[in-house]
Parts: sequence; C-alpha cells; structure tokens
Amino acid sequence: MWTQRVFSLKPRPRGFHLITEEVLRQLPELSDYSVGMLNLFIKHTSASLTINENADPSVRQDFEAFFNQTVKENEPYYTHTDEGSDDMPAHLKGSLLGFSLQIPITAGRLNLGIWQGIYLCEHRNHGGARQLVATLYGEK
Amino acid sequence: MWTQRVFSLKPRPRGFHLITEEVLRQLPELSDYSVGMLNLFIKHTSASLTINENADPSVRQDFEAFFNQTVKENEPYYTHTDEGSDDMPAHLKGSLLGFSLQIPITAGRLNLGIWQGIYLCEHRNHGGARQLVATLYGEK
Amino acid sequence: MWTQRVFSLKPRPRGFHLITEEVLRQLPELSDYSVGMLNLFIKHTSASLTINENADPSVRQDFEAFFNQTVKENEPYYTHTDEGSDDMPAHLKGSLLGFSLQIPITAGRLNLGIWQGIYLCEHRNHGGARQLVATLYGEK
Repeated sequence: MWTQRVFSLKPRPRGFHLITEEVLRQLPELSDYSVGMLNLFIKHTSASLTINENADPSVRQDFEAFFNQTVKENEPYYTHTDEGSDDMPAHLKGSLLGFSLQIPITAGRLNLGIWQGIYLCEHRNHGGARQLVATLYGEK
Repeated sequence: MWTQRVFSLKPRPRGFHLITEEVLRQLPELSDYSVGMLNLFIKHTSASLTINENADPSVRQDFEAFFNQTVKENEPYYTHTDEGSDDMPAHLKGSLLGFSLQIPITAGRLNLGIWQGIYLCEHRNHGGARQLVATLYGEK
Repeated sequence: MWTQRVFSLKPRPRGFHLITEEVLRQLPELSDYSVGMLNLFIKHTSASLTINENADPSVRQDFEAFFNQTVKENEPYYTHTDEGSDDMPAHLKGSLLGFSLQIPITAGRLNLGIWQGIYLCEHRNHGGARQLVATLYGEK
C-alpha cells in the first residue's frame, strides 16, 4: 500500500523549525497503516530535514548558532558566491543534515521517541515555501 | 512482507560502539528476505546511528575525539544548558550523524561492504539503554 | 515490485562528483514504477553519498574545501593513522555525509528538485571504483 503527496510548507525565517504537526496534517492516511515507513524528502539544496528535541525552543536556537559557527559565511576559499553570502553555507549545512527522513510507522502512528520532532532546517535568509514529498508505504 | 521489532540495546558508555551483531541477533527473520531493506531507527535525540569501519577500534576512538573537538561542550552561545554540559552537544552530534540507517538486503543478508559495521553513537555520559525500531521489508 | 542491482562507478579523484546520469543509466526499470523509492547505498566507509546543487561545479569545489578545513588531516589526536593521512578524515567525512540516499519515485522518475543532483563524495586520494547497491521498490 502506497500513499504519496507533494506539498509546500508555509515559508519560515532562517533557523530550525518544528514541523511535525504541519506534516501530519497532510497525511490522514497514516492511520490506515499497521506497519510501514514514512519517507519525507525535501526538494531543495539549501534547506534540509532532521529530527531533534520537540520540547524546548532553546535547542533549535542553539542549532542555528552552532551551524552558523561551524559553517561560516564569507569563507575566503568559497568560489560559489554569486547568490549571496548565505548560499554556499546553506548548501553545506543541507548536506551535513540531510534531505530526507525515514520514520517507522507502527499501529497507524509514527513510531517517534517521546522527545523526537521533525525539524525543517531553513538555511537561507529568504527561502520561501519549501516543497516536500511525503511517501507512506506498508501494510494495512 | 514486513517484520518490525522494538528492542533496547544494552547500556554503553559515551563513545562509538559496534552493534552489528547485537542488532542481527534481534532479526532472525532476515534470512527469509531474498531482497529488501532494513530500516534501523533510534528513538532518541542524544544518541545516533552511523555506519563505519568494523575492524580497528582506533577508528571509533578517533570518532569520539573528533566529535568532541567539533561540537564542544560549554560553548558560550548555548542557551539550552539545564540538562548538563553533555546535553546540547549530544543533540547536535545526533543530527550531524542521523537517527536512522537504511541498509539493503540481498539473499537473506545485509548487503554491507566488507569493512562496514553499524555504530551506536552514544553522546551522553549516562545515556542508558537506547531503544531501536528495526523494520525489515521486502520479498521472500 | 523490487529491482536491485550492484554496480561499480568509474573511479574518480578525491572530491565531490555529480553521478546522477551514471546512476540512472543502471536503472532502466525506473520507468516501470508509478510510485516508489530508490535506495542508493555505497558499500564503503571512506566514500559517501549526498544530494546537492547539480548546476555549478564551483559548489562541488567548495564542498571539497570546506570538508578539508573541517575534518583535517594529521590531527594530533588521531590514533588510526596506519593507512595514510587521508584515511581517518575519510571515515569521518563519510559518517557526516552518510552512506545512503532515499529518493522518492513518482510516475517513473526520481522526484528530485530541479536543482538536486546525486553526488559521489570521494574522500580518499586513490579510492578506486566504488561499489553501489541500488534498490528500487514500489508499485507498477
């Protein structure tokens, strides 16, 4: 059994954002799957997806600070600079974090840990509405 | 054909640990799959999963040293500090390494390279027994 | 429906290389899948796979520079040094970027974003021909 849906997230500022509920609203069929997988894929190279703590917003704030420290803008060795100082770091952060998630489904629900949430990692200053492909597959 | 199992790993100290055999012991059904996938998912935000060299323990020792250098404790810009100095770095290391693995199955076995093993990346000082979801799917 | 193929990429020098077309040439069955997933898995611990910008080669050049800056050779704390100064950094870069990709299939094609391409990340100076496992699964 397969369900696939392409949809856009609402635009968000640069930073790390909890999107678990916004994703689940797109997937009412989830409850039909007794066992399966959700693949969540972002169709971009300057925004990415990860999982992390779903409770305290300070975690997401520290993610933004850490990644800005670790993948700096305006490194003298960057050659891909035409699209702005936030562009090349965005590509690098994207590949460090990854562009897809695979989350198991158990008894009609995502089998996430109690503290796990889905993050949109928006690495551009003005990234706009990001497009996702959600693919559910498994057994009724 | 689907098989799904939730189980706990034995507790391990902070560091990188080879868990291929401990995982395989939980999955006797693997040999029934002629072609398929194993998804291994960790239900935490401060421990993660990766693949790397399965032979020389010095690789895992250098992983711990590298990640401690690269994702430092007590960065002045951290705001999420209530759960100890190893907590925020653990969240960051987790997202850098990732919380799930997708490994192909061929003729009843994981189709890993000869040097590849599955690592538990324990980022907390006292992480305890970590919970995994293993999902096998494919054809008999 | 499942299709699985093991194949070698042509050898490439250290650096980041766009391999989308070379991978697709191995997978003529892709067009038979109305909905599904491609899992691409690299059977090594010193070369990895990621997705990033498919247009401007300067992005790939900056990836090589960034990862060389961030995961240095000859760190004094490395203990795994017998296989050359490029070896331990290669293992670390591999785990940071990851060893598999999961890409959704829609209407017989990979549902990649318009700017997304598949990168081989060759972290060794002389890595040779890298072996991939491509697994397609889904519905006709």
